[in-house]
Amino acid sequence: MMNFEDFEEKTISRNEIFKGHIIEVVVDDVQLPDGGTGKRELVFHPGAVAVIPITEDNKMIMVKQYRKPLEKVTLEIPAGKIDPGEQNNPKETAERELEEETGYRANKFSFVNSMYVSPGFANELLHIYFAEQLEKVPNPRPLDDDEVIELYTLTLAEAKAEIASGLICDAKTIFAVQYWELQQLKEDKR
Amino acid sequence: MMNFEDFEEKTISRNEIFKGHIIEVVVDDVQLPDGGTGKRELVFHPGAVAVIPITEDNKMIMVKQYRKPLEKVTLEIPAGKIDPGEQNNPKETAERELEEETGYRANKFSFVNSMYVSPGFANELLHIYFAEQLEKVPNPRPLDDDEVIELYTLTLAEAKAEIASGLICDAKTIFAVQYWELQQLKEDKR
Repeated sequence: MMNFEDFEEKTISRNEIFKGHIIEVVVDDVQLPDGGTGKRELVFHPGAVAVIPITEDNKMIMVKQYRKPLEKVTLEIPAGKIDPGEQNNPKETAERELEEETGYRANKFSFVNSMYVSPGFANELLHIYFAEQLEKVPNPRPLDDDEVIELYTLTLAEAKAEIASGLICDAKTIFAVQYWELQQLKEDKR
Repeated sequence: MMNFEDFEEKTISRNEIFKGHIIEVVVDDVQLPDGGTGKRELVFHPGAVAVIPITEDNKMIMVKQYRKPLEKVTLEIPAGKIDPGEQNNPKETAERELEEETGYRANKFSFVNSMYVSPGFANELLHIYFAEQLEKVPNPRPLDDDEVIELYTLTLAEAKAEIASGLICDAKTIFAVQYWELQQLKEDKR
């Protein structure tokens, strides 16, 4: 078994390319473990949260929205990036996003997993929560200015059909539908 | 129900920031559906493939490697980005990556899903395959020059334990383990 030193790519120098509102881009010259050198193009991202909201009649709430990088409309679970100052409490961000995007708050809010979405070039860490026992918030916090969304509720069969149709096409939502299916199968087995 | 035009964010102008070997970065000024304007920081990526390889004794093959964006060692399913010229045949890329990283070829190679890994800022599309009936390739194609990896085979229980430990920490591998668990549960029910 190899040790950390056998893998580590030490930074020789860093070239800062771009510092935007959301992402930062750098190119590192690195020392490879075998003594050679290489270049690594890296995107730094503040992290994000996503919520799997399940209604009392066992449907998943999803959000239709435009995704500029894809130039298409997608159906996804509610999600958003972590704002400065929220770094230490992703659950709070997740509760805020759920309220802003759906108008619901959850009386049962459980942590599912944290996952790096694309570890080859980005450090974005996504925290996923499962939200149940939903209730409408009387005066929910408003959406961000530049967000245009439409809400849908889907049964498991409908969600799987929208994965097949391609309207659901992002990793976190496909993961969420699979997670939900797995929970239901496990409950059936009890 | 709203139409495509109710969501679309038209590009007013594009500022090209960086064209690297792997990613391209641009900032678009966009026209929002409500008439306002906004900025979108976008990363273009050639796409990637990942393989869920299951051995004859029902273990998943994973790769230990250093991930520079995270500055840590991770355990992941075999994966790699799509090279120029392979855009139309991700399955070929997946078979190549499996052979390069593990030395195996699969007699049963099934498509699982294609998913955008981070649709808020990146257009990276990841194609996932399930590989069974593995056999050792006598003289497998070599790794890329800058790749240092170590192979592991894990049972489902071991894989779930490494998710809990944090060594398995990326979205595609957590998805893969969950997918594998779901397949096994479905088979048990038959």
